[in-house]
Amino acid sequence: MKEDNHIFGIHAVIEAIKAGKEIDKILIQRGLAGQLFNDLRKVLQGTEIPYQMVPPEKINRITKKNHQGVIAFVCEIEYFKAEDILHKVFSEGKTPLVLVLDKITDVRNFGAIARTAECSGVDMIIVPQRGSAQLNGDAVKTSAGALHRIPVCREYNLKDTITFLKESGLQIIACHEKTEKLIYDVDFKIPTAIVMGSEDLGISGEYLRLCTDAVKIPMTGKIASLNVSVATGVVLYEVIRQRL
Amino acid sequence: MKEDNHIFGIHAVIEAIKAGKEIDKILIQRGLAGQLFNDLRKVLQGTEIPYQMVPPEKINRITKKNHQGVIAFVCEIEYFKAEDILHKVFSEGKTPLVLVLDKITDVRNFGAIARTAECSGVDMIIVPQRGSAQLNGDAVKTSAGALHRIPVCREYNLKDTITFLKESGLQIIACHEKTEKLIYDVDFKIPTAIVMGSEDLGISGEYLRLCTDAVKIPMTGKIASLNVSVATGVVLYEVIRQRL
Repeated sequence: MKEDNHIFGIHAVIEAIKAGKEIDKILIQRGLAGQLFNDLRKVLQGTEIPYQMVPPEKINRITKKNHQGVIAFVCEIEYFKAEDILHKVFSEGKTPLVLVLDKITDVRNFGAIARTAECSGVDMIIVPQRGSAQLNGDAVKTSAGALHRIPVCREYNLKDTITFLKESGLQIIACHEKTEKLIYDVDFKIPTAIVMGSEDLGISGEYLRLCTDAVKIPMTGKIASLNVSVATGVVLYEVIRQRL
Repeated sequence: MKEDNHIFGIHAVIEAIKAGKEIDKILIQRGLAGQLFNDLRKVLQGTEIPYQMVPPEKINRITKKNHQGVIAFVCEIEYFKAEDILHKVFSEGKTPLVLVLDKITDVRNFGAIARTAECSGVDMIIVPQRGSAQLNGDAVKTSAGALHRIPVCREYNLKDTITFLKESGLQIIACHEKTEKLIYDVDFKIPTAIVMGSEDLGISGEYLRLCTDAVKIPMTGKIASLNVSVATGVVLYEVIRQRL
């Protein structure tokens, strides 16, 4: 695990992008201008790297060194392409089990989910390019190393990816509370992708419309919602139970 | 939720104990002596409140006020007696589902477990007097308030409590990795207590010997163990599935 997972300084960041380094996200100081900044913008345009304009204090809190208003977070993990993984799973004669995480932002939740996914034989985790937890050292640690073992695919357009999974013969099952059907009422023995939403926002409507079906975990108490990493564990193990 | 969950000063702590205030734990500065300290020791002897002798810096880090070497953490939640709850559950004609947590020390894990327990209809959570996560504001928050809804019983002698549950007709099921039987191979429709151990130490041998049976969650990956809050969710929902 890298101790120091960021690169700072406009020039260093431009070079890292050009060298094809896997970058999680870039923070750029608001109001930055000049030739080098224009170069950075140009280089960024050819990529899918997410970047954010932030007040200078935000970058100062991360490093006290001469960052010139630009800092890039290097990926702790390697990303894969959903098509490649699905092709591999099918060619091995396995029944795919895919986990789509729509904007899970809590690093510890993400780590715990990755760990469960590895333990339950999930073939890949798919996340959107933006709005997902940063898969940093903390995430890798909470995942007990699972993030180095299970393929994570970071997709620029999650709608396209879900459509692709569907067209490849997978049922797309949304797991949330706004349905009557229980997780026990779906046949998980066929190729399946399970979609989990963030704790606060749930699953985005645009993805929900693409789902084949929606299921919920039964709730007998008053709180009526589980922590998302626990909920993911419960639904994944229902798949396992059916497939055993 | 109390913002300020501690009482400091020998006199104030003695009065709090005498008044029967629910106290989680007391820290006492090493080398403390004198009449008031002897009074405190005498008052403590009549209780089951855990206390710890610590270097002065530990207390100084918690409060800068004149603590006289003694600080008590007041409970955020009310504790119950296992006998009372079990009696109530039986008298309501329900099939008991009890969760015994052997030294879960991580506050966030404990909170997530309490939340799952509330959602899945667990009747009570039993923890040992010592070595469990402090059920402070963070635990209550992570539990989404479940710790105010589900009875928690803090038992001085967990062996006696497990024996009591067993003699009351509950099967005691240990959930850990060192067994071949799967969670799907046990009948959970009868009165049941499930025992979960801490992430690092597992379930203590002395409790394990009292268990009726042991089960494991199937693992298909290489990591071979789930986060304890996820594991608890998986096994509790297997109970729910069977009981539905």
